[in-house]
Amino acid sequence: MKIKSLLAALLVAALPMSQGIAAEPIEPIKAHKPKNPKLVELGKALYFDPRLSKSGFISCNSCHNLSMGGTDNLSTSIGHNWQQGPINAPTVLNSSMNMAQFWDGRAADLKEQAGGPIANPGEMAFTHELAVDVLKSIPQYGTMFKTAFGTNEINIDRVTDAIAAFEETLVTPDSRFDQWLKGNKKAMTKQEVNGYKLFKDSGCTACHYGPAMGGQSFQKMGLVAEYDTKSKVEGVAGLTGKDADRMKFKVPTLRNVEMTYPYFHDGAVWTLEEAVDIMGRLQLGREYSKAEIADIVAFLKTLTGKQPDFKLPILPPSTNATPRPTPFE
Amino acid sequence: MKIKSLLAALLVAALPMSQGIAAEPIEPIKAHKPKNPKLVELGKALYFDPRLSKSGFISCNSCHNLSMGGTDNLSTSIGHNWQQGPINAPTVLNSSMNMAQFWDGRAADLKEQAGGPIANPGEMAFTHELAVDVLKSIPQYGTMFKTAFGTNEINIDRVTDAIAAFEETLVTPDSRFDQWLKGNKKAMTKQEVNGYKLFKDSGCTACHYGPAMGGQSFQKMGLVAEYDTKSKVEGVAGLTGKDADRMKFKVPTLRNVEMTYPYFHDGAVWTLEEAVDIMGRLQLGREYSKAEIADIVAFLKTLTGKQPDFKLPILPPSTNATPRPTPFE
Repeated sequence: MKIKSLLAALLVAALPMSQGIAAEPIEPIKAHKPKNPKLVELGKALYFDPRLSKSGFISCNSCHNLSMGGTDNLSTSIGHNWQQGPINAPTVLNSSMNMAQFWDGRAADLKEQAGGPIANPGEMAFTHELAVDVLKSIPQYGTMFKTAFGTNEINIDRVTDAIAAFEETLVTPDSRFDQWLKGNKKAMTKQEVNGYKLFKDSGCTACHYGPAMGGQSFQKMGLVAEYDTKSKVEGVAGLTGKDADRMKFKVPTLRNVEMTYPYFHDGAVWTLEEAVDIMGRLQLGREYSKAEIADIVAFLKTLTGKQPDFKLPILPPSTNATPRPTPFE
Repeated sequence: MKIKSLLAALLVAALPMSQGIAAEPIEPIKAHKPKNPKLVELGKALYFDPRLSKSGFISCNSCHNLSMGGTDNLSTSIGHNWQQGPINAPTVLNSSMNMAQFWDGRAADLKEQAGGPIANPGEMAFTHELAVDVLKSIPQYGTMFKTAFGTNEINIDRVTDAIAAFEETLVTPDSRFDQWLKGNKKAMTKQEVNGYKLFKDSGCTACHYGPAMGGQSFQKMGLVAEYDTKSKVEGVAGLTGKDADRMKFKVPTLRNVEMTYPYFHDGAVWTLEEAVDIMGRLQLGREYSKAEIADIVAFLKTLTGKQPDFKLPILPPSTNATPRPTPFE
């Protein structure tokens, strides 16, 4: 018995860590080392700056609030003039790992995504030109662009580069699950491990795989049975017009899912228990028992990683030349 | 000559610092040492928590944005359902030094103030009871209240205590003007010192005195000539009904004034040049020359102190029991 466990221990020690991990469909999240920290600092300021909106009131952080799991914790977001958005704001955390951005994947990457809300009449309701004009009028931003890019030229390409560079830092390593994946078997309780096994064995990892546990494919919401929703959103079909793409959405990440409620593209479901139940029935054709749901939910709560850890940015003040916000026009 | 300056240097050295400062109508801002750092941490979370609003979207920080001088940099604020507020949001920075809170002084202190916007139908549009219910449903908040107060009881009294304790930390010492006041004569340029002298000699310090340079008295806006405004707000008269109190407002602080645009209770004035010109004509009956205005504005820009310096708080997630926000009802 003693020799057996010694052998087992030696075997584990001899096995490269990457192999040990490769056996699982989910990999731990790696911390991000930015190549250009000055670009990240600039992007952080821009991310928090409501002057990129027509009203001067809405910033990236309004709907992707980094105090709240990178979401607004609302079913659908509030945009300019309190307009109700059509879809649930996905978390910005770990979004750099998505194969594409937005629920329908219409932006290829974070840089392309970042330009969207600024110019969307239902969100920040501004234009790229006006946003750039605001930034150009603020000499301190000029200095920040110069430090980040080498010249103080400001254009939307650089603005979205900087926001994307900041967003790339928003990864959440060191969740208890990741600690467990890396070999610390004390990081999870028996129930949580049971939940993970059930999650894996019943097929959830067919879609929720990779370090972000999602973001790697488009899937039909309601494979086995139709999803009952009041939302008019059609998913990828809204882009392609193809009937086969109806209700196809990018699989959302499950990282930090305890913080990213409410769930699904319509944000209609507020508890993990209900979300797991619906996924089981609609995607897997399986009715989980209450105990099984409790196990999976316990597992899902181990996916909360290290949250954004930085100082609140102080924004450079506007000048006499800065175009003024027009919230009520 | 050499002996003279030596004598002068000795004299300055012998003079207690406090006496040197007492000669000026403005005192440097002192850093704040909180008595109960756990209470401050709790207050910071509450300050950033939009779940204290009906919509789940508006927090204290929405209109008193600590990235932007503790204001929203809007003429008047945006409230629930995009309602337009009646008055300019005053800065929260150094507000602990105000003799009373709000433009009309209707709240005695920060604690009393903090309860106002939560329950104001035009601002956060919630009730104290519902806000407390939200917090009670979140065990992590219970722990934070216990650490701060000794028991995990949550009530509006404690909520506003905590927010006020956090706000008391929001002082901005070490401005260049304060460095100058403390004896570092290199901290200001000649033009800035000239501006200060003119500010003092022409009577601005009659109202803008004390460490916050304001907040110590109510004064009529438009003493010498009437202020031309579209605002319907009547100031203290709105509380007392007295004609003598018409257009009487608490004198705003001038600390960080470069960051707290736009100016006056109606937020109608966007440049410091125009604000100084109006103050001269309406309050002092004096028409400053362009050069004089430039000097005073240069001085005013030395009043920007050390801005809030802390990490973005991560808010504890809601639970299945947490009442849900209702932004569109």
